Amino acid sequence: MRIAILGGTGNIGRGLALRWGLRHEILIGSRVGSKAERAAGECAETLSAVTSIACQIKGTTNTEAAAAAELVVIAVPYRAMRELVDAIRPVLDDQIVISLVVPMEKSDSYLKYTPPSDGSAAMELKRLLPDTVRVIAAFHNLPGEKLRQLNMRLECDVVICGDVEGMSVVSALVEEIDGLRVLDGGGLEDAAMVESLTPFLINIARRNKLHGLGIRFV
Amino acid sequence: MRIAILGGTGNIGRGLALRWGLRHEILIGSRVGSKAERAAGECAETLSAVTSIACQIKGTTNTEAAAAAELVVIAVPYRAMRELVDAIRPVLDDQIVISLVVPMEKSDSYLKYTPPSDGSAAMELKRLLPDTVRVIAAFHNLPGEKLRQLNMRLECDVVICGDVEGMSVVSALVEEIDGLRVLDGGGLEDAAMVESLTPFLINIARRNKLHGLGIRFV
Repeated sequence: MRIAILGGTGNIGRGLALRWGLRHEILIGSRVGSKAERAAGECAETLSAVTSIACQIKGTTNTEAAAAAELVVIAVPYRAMRELVDAIRPVLDDQIVISLVVPMEKSDSYLKYTPPSDGSAAMELKRLLPDTVRVIAAFHNLPGEKLRQLNMRLECDVVICGDVEGMSVVSALVEEIDGLRVLDGGGLEDAAMVESLTPFLINIARRNKLHGLGIRFV
Repeated sequence: MRIAILGGTGNIGRGLALRWGLRHEILIGSRVGSKAERAAGECAETLSAVTSIACQIKGTTNTEAAAAAELVVIAVPYRAMRELVDAIRPVLDDQIVISLVVPMEKSDSYLKYTPPSDGSAAMELKRLLPDTVRVIAAFHNLPGEKLRQLNMRLECDVVICGDVEGMSVVSALVEEIDGLRVLDGGGLEDAAMVESLTPFLINIARRNKLHGLGIRFV
């Protein structure tokens, strides 16, 4: 599958590119194309050091990546989401869009979930993007640094929300990553709870001097 | 320590009574004293079947249990909380009160967190109880049925919220239970997030045909 990872130069974006890079064609997107090209080059180099299987990871602008992809991952911070939407709306058709976006703000030294009036970033995306796009909320609660380290097996759960058809495509992508388990979190209107876990996890990590937390239901 | 477990005839209440019963004096409380006596008798019997160490588990009314205890666990459903508060307020002094209360309601076939205007059940308790009482939010997210089974080791995290002094007492109680890890969730004003995990866990279990879920940060 041709997958665009927009805002893909951060830990989570690179982590997904690396973990999917041997099975899929990955387009890392950034506002600045050259930044994405550099990230893609580094990911390709990392993979070539551990396998002789050829990978296809390229970097380009967010808009070009979205235009070329069958599935689009949105991994930008919430503050950059609307500008990104304006840039990609014209090139989207009936792709699946995976939202990793979490609206959160600092309050004292901790983070607070600050959902928009739509209820969640995922619901806002659904309203802003063409009706034909299927938005799935997923991958909010993975530790990015660990995801980037290919030798780390993540024993984490990925709770996903959205429509049945979109979720079945995304479920398969989750389970391609060794150690991850996918869990049905309900419809897209249930995404707020999943998004709100991200600042909670970061706060728990900070308060308890832990690092890079994911979540597991046991 | 003399510990009262109010609303203690359910799974979580009995589970805590069993897990603490060999080290502490447990008073199971219920609105109806005879119901608590029966639950206490069953817990004592369960323990006597696995150990020759004598245990002190008694049953009585919620009010009598609260009056006699150094630490009070409130394990009633939210709808019963105010009536309980009216019954125990006069007998409370400077005890630590652990709140397991989660305000939630059914919406379709799933549960929804419905915090009161204080922000959480724990904050409401703090407002309703005497100022000298220290309220700690804890133990919301344990699978009750598994807690009751003494042969089950729960590999779960218990996130607690409250003041530093109260949390240090409650932390020790958490860690007396084999397998549980205690995590600092912040002040009592942060309890809403921890309470809201309970309906989320129940919904995730239901949607994914899992049973009795707890949570683990990994």
